[in-house]
Amino acid sequence: MRARISPQKNYAAGVGPGDVMLGGAIGEVIRSNSPEYKPGDFVVSDLTFGWQDYAVISHSVVRRIDPDLAPLPCWLDFMGLNGLTAYIGLVESGGIRPGDTVLISAAAGSVGQIAGQIAKLTGCRAIAVTSSEEKIARCRELGYDAGINYRTEPDLAAAIAKECPDGIDVFFDNTAGPIHDAVLQNLATHARIIVCGTVALAETFGQPDIGPRFMRQILVARARIEGFLVLDYQHRYVEARTRLAEWNRAGKLQYQYDIADGLENTPNAFLRMLTSKNLGKQLVRVGPEA
Amino acid sequence: MRARISPQKNYAAGVGPGDVMLGGAIGEVIRSNSPEYKPGDFVVSDLTFGWQDYAVISHSVVRRIDPDLAPLPCWLDFMGLNGLTAYIGLVESGGIRPGDTVLISAAAGSVGQIAGQIAKLTGCRAIAVTSSEEKIARCRELGYDAGINYRTEPDLAAAIAKECPDGIDVFFDNTAGPIHDAVLQNLATHARIIVCGTVALAETFGQPDIGPRFMRQILVARARIEGFLVLDYQHRYVEARTRLAEWNRAGKLQYQYDIADGLENTPNAFLRMLTSKNLGKQLVRVGPEA
Repeated sequence: MRARISPQKNYAAGVGPGDVMLGGAIGEVIRSNSPEYKPGDFVVSDLTFGWQDYAVISHSVVRRIDPDLAPLPCWLDFMGLNGLTAYIGLVESGGIRPGDTVLISAAAGSVGQIAGQIAKLTGCRAIAVTSSEEKIARCRELGYDAGINYRTEPDLAAAIAKECPDGIDVFFDNTAGPIHDAVLQNLATHARIIVCGTVALAETFGQPDIGPRFMRQILVARARIEGFLVLDYQHRYVEARTRLAEWNRAGKLQYQYDIADGLENTPNAFLRMLTSKNLGKQLVRVGPEA
Repeated sequence: MRARISPQKNYAAGVGPGDVMLGGAIGEVIRSNSPEYKPGDFVVSDLTFGWQDYAVISHSVVRRIDPDLAPLPCWLDFMGLNGLTAYIGLVESGGIRPGDTVLISAAAGSVGQIAGQIAKLTGCRAIAVTSSEEKIARCRELGYDAGINYRTEPDLAAAIAKECPDGIDVFFDNTAGPIHDAVLQNLATHARIIVCGTVALAETFGQPDIGPRFMRQILVARARIEGFLVLDYQHRYVEARTRLAEWNRAGKLQYQYDIADGLENTPNAFLRMLTSKNLGKQLVRVGPEA
């Protein structure tokens, strides 16, 4: 969403001033001209509802929610784009294997909370990098083996080296920036780096990001860095959702939301997320229930 | 070889002062205690002869040369590590497909000359980036569609954009540094970058390489950067050599050597290669024929 309001080139069309901001939502059908849906049904769309209390929307861009598969808000969490991103990113782009050391940045965020649990469920060692002791504690509850606070650690590369003396096999990179730099000095041979987000670069506003580069480390480790966008993998969504719902029903996949109330609090909730103040998936309750 | 005399961490053991410098060679058997070889046989080793006129060497580290498959010096060129690097790098790490735009840095070098021809033989468009008009002319003789002189081009990223308006699908990166930077501003969606060499960083001597970074471009293009070392693909050597020899016998694969004479000229030949003065694979003739 941050990228969509940026004027920079991106993987999706931008949102201009005056447009309705794009965003996913779970909605209750109030009125329907489609024979497929009736009032009271719940539907979800990852992108097209927008930031608004009510939406008129085509039946072709929503999916019916099956509440037996997972509880309602889960369809914007581990059953939504962030769960799919965590699962497909680790499995497909990261190629995680049992025994891998997997480091996840923004580990207490909506993708990171699920990614860490998937890493553990796959038999990996999972290392959280996050921004507070509270978030590290939350990551440990989720099963992460260790947590590193990048805000208080004076030498992040050294802290990672101490925690992961054999190097990082898979790096789920949600931030770019200094955390990325620290991990690239700790690559295991044939490391895989999933470039999923670059939130640490959010404030560069199109200016070049200047800093140390690591081509030699990439060559020596024969590492792979790959830009990952979950929307490229829609053919894998059913497989991913089935697996995630199974883990959840078996009690192996926890989830957590951070719910704000009211449409007017949406920009603030968005900023809280960008400044690491949320715990778990940031949601906003809108419409008559807010 | 440059990396082996550097004290930095590397993918292979280093060579210390006083050690024999490692290097591949073609040798004629003068005396043999092995029933597999007799005087007059020709053998090749990619690494273990070393910089010396004569070598005592185990039969287990050499391969017999079949002169019917390709002429003698070719076994250090397209039938040797540089041909294998070009072929396996493009096919395996680069995943080249007909119609791809393939940009190759150090395009007139020993790997680049072969890589450009393989790109053309695979149905790709091949763009050379090299250091002189003479080398661009040589690349055109080899079949490259276009050449860019990085030493005289005032804005390399713009020159690449002009030559490749739809972006680069595959980048065979032999240099890192400013050429890498220019290409990363011109990535096609799902671009693949083969990090094969970092010769532009040769003089940093372990200091960090500071400059613009391109994580956002990698994410937006969903590009893949991969460190590539041909020694990881020994199981593919027979397939690669068979294909390369077939192309050569069919008159479709040209080769060129730059031969210096005498062991005492080896360091100088090595420096010529590092400073882009050679044309084609740099070889040194040693022993009684030098």
